[in-house]
Order: sequence, then C-alpha cells, then structure tokens
Amino acid sequence: MKTIGILGGMGPLATADLFRKIVVCTPANCDNDHIRVYIDSNARIPDRTAALLNGGPDPVPEMLSALRNLEKCGADCIIMPCNTAHAFLPDLQAETDIPILNMLQITAEACAARYPGKLAAVLATSGTIQTGLYARALDTAGVSFLEPDEAEQKEVMRLIYDVVKPWRPIPPEKAAWVSLLDSLRARGADYFILGCTELPVLAGILAVEGPFVDPTDELAHAAIRFCGLTPLKS
Amino acid sequence: MKTIGILGGMGPLATADLFRKIVVCTPANCDNDHIRVYIDSNARIPDRTAALLNGGPDPVPEMLSALRNLEKCGADCIIMPCNTAHAFLPDLQAETDIPILNMLQITAEACAARYPGKLAAVLATSGTIQTGLYARALDTAGVSFLEPDEAEQKEVMRLIYDVVKPWRPIPPEKAAWVSLLDSLRARGADYFILGCTELPVLAGILAVEGPFVDPTDELAHAAIRFCGLTPLKS
Repeated sequence: MKTIGILGGMGPLATADLFRKIVVCTPANCDNDHIRVYIDSNARIPDRTAALLNGGPDPVPEMLSALRNLEKCGADCIIMPCNTAHAFLPDLQAETDIPILNMLQITAEACAARYPGKLAAVLATSGTIQTGLYARALDTAGVSFLEPDEAEQKEVMRLIYDVVKPWRPIPPEKAAWVSLLDSLRARGADYFILGCTELPVLAGILAVEGPFVDPTDELAHAAIRFCGLTPLKS
Repeated sequence: MKTIGILGGMGPLATADLFRKIVVCTPANCDNDHIRVYIDSNARIPDRTAALLNGGPDPVPEMLSALRNLEKCGADCIIMPCNTAHAFLPDLQAETDIPILNMLQITAEACAARYPGKLAAVLATSGTIQTGLYARALDTAGVSFLEPDEAEQKEVMRLIYDVVKPWRPIPPEKAAWVSLLDSLRARGADYFILGCTELPVLAGILAVEGPFVDPTDELAHAAIRFCGLTPLKS
C-alpha cells in the first residue's frame, strides 16, 4: 500500500488533528490494515502569514527540510495541514517528484459538490485571504463565497493566534465563535469553510452549528483515496 | 531544542494520542515554541502479542525500519506508544545510539510517587502481562499490583482488539468498562494502570472514574522533559 507524508508543524495541533482524522477515517480492523504515515512536525517553520504580509522570515527552507525527511522515509504523497502554507506549494513542488496534494483545491471541489448554488464564508488567516489563495481555488471550482470584513477578520486571527495556537482555555470562546458565525450568516453565508487548520480544532470542541466544510477532513479523505482505500465518514 | 522521534503504528490511534498529548502538554504560545517531532506510524509492524505468545511474525524488522527513518530525520530520543513493544526495546536499543525512553519504567516511577502504599491493577495485553513486562517495572519501583484474572483479561483483550483497534462505536462499551473496573476494585485495586496504549483512548472517551495512571501521558511528559521543557498538565 502507498504511504502518506505529512509536512507538519503549522501548527502542531492541526498536524495532530490531520493525523487522527486519517486514522479514524481509514477502514481498518487491525493495525496492519492502516496506512503507513510519516510526519515531520517541524516546529521551526516560520509563520506563513508573517512571511506573506509583514516581511517575516521565509518559511520555505524549513518546509524543505521537512520535505527532504519525508522523501528519505519514502512517502508516496505529501500533504500539508496549513492552508496558508499552500502559497509556497509551487516552490516546494518544484523541488520534488512526490505529488503534493492541494488542500484548497480539494476543499473547493468538495464545496461545489456538496453545496451547489450556496454561498460560502471563508474563515482563514489574513495571509490566506490577502494572497487570494481560497478565492482562486473557489473561483476555479465555481463556488460563490464571501470573505470576512475587517472586524470579523480581526476576530478570526484572534481565535487562531490567541486561542488555538497557545491552546488557552476554550469554553469562554463559544460566544465569540457563535457571534462571528452569526455576523457572516447575516451577510448571506450559507456555510463556512474552516480555511485555517487551527479552526477545525476549535469548531470540534465548541460544537456549534455550521454547516462547516473542514479542509483537514477533506485532505485526510483525499490522502486515503490516494492510497487506494475508500475513506469512512469522520 | 532537542527533537522527539515516535516509533509508532502500534496502533495508529494510540500514536495519534501520544502526539496530541505531547503538543497540548508543551508550554507554547506559538508554533515555534513547540518541539520538532518526527513520526513513523508504521502500520506494517506485526502484532506484538501474537509474536510473543503465539509464534506470530517477528515485529523487530519493521520496528527497525521505522527506527532507521527516525535516525535519518535526526531524532534525539525515541519513544514507542505501545507497551507490549517494550519487550523488544533491548533489541532495538542495541541497534542505535539514540536513547529509547522506557514507558513502563517511567510509568512505574509515576505510580510509586503518586500512589505510595496503594494497589495498582495492570490493564494490558496478554503479551505484556505474560512476559512480565509491567511486573518487573513495578517490582523495581516498589509498586504493589494485581493482574486481571482470566475472565477479566479476556475482557481487556476484547476492548483493545475488538473495540479500539477497529474503532467501532464506543458508547455501548461504557457498561463493560465500568464492570471490568468494578471487578478489579472488588479485588482490592486502588487505581488502574492503562498499560496498553489503546486504553487511554477508550478511557478518555468513556470518562468514567479511575483513578487512572496513563502511560501515554507519562511518556509524553518524559519526552517533553527530555527536550528541556516543563510539561503542562494534560
């Protein structure tokens, strides 16, 4: 059976979330039915949004360091549990023959299939939003979408950087999360793309209604299919 | 900062559990505060209990394959989220200079410190029990313990192999889990060592009272300490 390489650490909790989703969505009755998965959770990769928008250090060298490790292990495909990191996917793909599955493209296709004619709200880092990463993927798939306004985007970034990444107590954030979703719903959103891999972690714990499209889940399923298996529902 | 290598896949869900515990127990405010973690979740490793008790295929070659990958990545220590696999720790340690942290020894020391004078019940695979892996570690640490009787051991193995490994619906198992713990409590157990890495996964979901000692948690903490950080409580 083919194997999966996870170029992770962006952030580590999102990497753990992706790995767990691969495991529970793999049809398996015992250890040996599972897919071999290699992970480099490289916590040294500089922040992607800071690099894209604020002149922060280039993340590509440390991403390449992880990519080389996954190559050495023998990964048959590479997946990256960080939406913003996909801004650098072309640079990485140019460096390796191993296919890197594109989470944003996979997610956009899932949106088109699951919610035809509906309006998506894209919740993502400012790096992902301002570089138009999701906009391009959704346009290509023919998916209508709206992006957060300035105040909403500030709240999305707070939840990602001040709540999930430092893993501070989550329950007090339920009201903030509901209010953010309500605000986007009032502007016409029919469903929400959890377009930063820290957000499915938050959404999973807060358990409020979406509906949500979870790119981590879509990527897990795509990787399982790449390995020739039919994924189970999460 | 030092790095951690996880020799995993025994089983994959337990590997995901250990990785997540390392992440949430690491004191970190952003991605870059975390520890770099390499994982080979090698689903090809043959069953450890089958090898130890029933003449099943030797797991060491596939364990070594994962160990070599972790060496290539540059891991500074190795941890194995499988108690039964520790029967093969001496064979693996003889093959590498990278220290392999011993989950059973770490757990036994935690028991001695946390529950002095109390009686532990050891919940583990038949491979772990019959090779005396925990018995030796607990004796060395001066921890009193009892092991499941034949019927209880059969139930432990059913929960590990028929419930957690194939990840079947868990809620119906709550009564079975409570009954197993009650049975051991009636024989004098003051607390429970979740001495198979599938069991903390089950215990975490069923959320019944222990008290429990979770070797996966103890191993996560020991690995974080190895890297020079003070672990947070789970």
